[in-house]
Amino acid sequence: MTTKHVPKDWMFEFHGHRCPFMPIGYRMGMLAMERLGVGHESDHGFFVFPEIGEGHPQACMMDGMQIATGATYGKLLMAKTFYGKLAATFYHPTKGAVRYALKPEFVDAMGKLEFFAYRKKGVEPSQIPAKVTDEVINWVYDQADDFMFKVEPKPDFKFTPVKGSFNKTKCTACGEYAFDRYVRMKEGQPFCIPCSGYEK
Amino acid sequence: MTTKHVPKDWMFEFHGHRCPFMPIGYRMGMLAMERLGVGHESDHGFFVFPEIGEGHPQACMMDGMQIATGATYGKLLMAKTFYGKLAATFYHPTKGAVRYALKPEFVDAMGKLEFFAYRKKGVEPSQIPAKVTDEVINWVYDQADDFMFKVEPKPDFKFTPVKGSFNKTKCTACGEYAFDRYVRMKEGQPFCIPCSGYEK
Repeated sequence: MTTKHVPKDWMFEFHGHRCPFMPIGYRMGMLAMERLGVGHESDHGFFVFPEIGEGHPQACMMDGMQIATGATYGKLLMAKTFYGKLAATFYHPTKGAVRYALKPEFVDAMGKLEFFAYRKKGVEPSQIPAKVTDEVINWVYDQADDFMFKVEPKPDFKFTPVKGSFNKTKCTACGEYAFDRYVRMKEGQPFCIPCSGYEK
Repeated sequence: MTTKHVPKDWMFEFHGHRCPFMPIGYRMGMLAMERLGVGHESDHGFFVFPEIGEGHPQACMMDGMQIATGATYGKLLMAKTFYGKLAATFYHPTKGAVRYALKPEFVDAMGKLEFFAYRKKGVEPSQIPAKVTDEVINWVYDQADDFMFKVEPKPDFKFTPVKGSFNKTKCTACGEYAFDRYVRMKEGQPFCIPCSGYEK
């Protein structure tokens, strides 16, 4: 294989099925980290903005990015831009930002593999014959980085996460805690958003 | 320990640090799956809506939920509600929905452990002494489910993902693909959102 960035078994286990897009996102994440000179993020200091949306395939890339970078959704380090594009910007506050996008030539070439005939018929990845899935995954491993990825430094990219607070308040109605940023007042009393009746 | 739902080493590796909230979300996810009678989701058929927002701690729960359920952000199966609450609704189209919330008494009791003194001083989880982190994680493992979680069936909960499509179009300006839902027209030509100049 051409690439050294091949996901481990537990990474496929996390993702839930074998498909080419988790490994593509993993590779994208590893390459972006190498380029920026950062390691797997332990805490809350590296951000990934995938240009993925909803209602389209190939979003699985984002799980590969989470796995590679440690910039997970749970740590509030990943957020979709809803552009419906197969690209992502990787940002470190001191190391800078770089954008990786899949080249259309690569997407077109990959789309000819049998795996996509199954997917377009609505067959879920876990139900596609292993031989067909392995073919596309191994094909991806064999492609050169230059053929797959358009890479753009983003020297002007900036992002500042909202300021965090530990303060929380019990909702007057349900008694559950809500963090203060999300507490709403109604008739002089604090409520969580769902109990307040407000939309947000 | 009281619970059997203890994350494996690779799950902490994915998350990036040891903290009590990833394991709490993992346990919440495992309990919700047991209650609904579903297994780890391989493909795209199980949804989790955490009531987490931004700018507050304890969001790490969501990584535990992703790991437990297979309803990952990358597979478009997880979306925050931005209520700023430590709760989540787990939904399977044929098995129904259940909401789990952390009880305030549990949150208050846990908040007395030394781990939170470090966190409130701004110390990142990976920098907190292992003894302090292990203390809170093991304390959580020892708590009873009933003390930790408020559980509510949600028989009326419904969610329908947007209809997906594989159709995509090359942007007139950048030449990259955008999935058709996100293609915008400008002077009679198709553009991706960033090249279109439109906000969304």
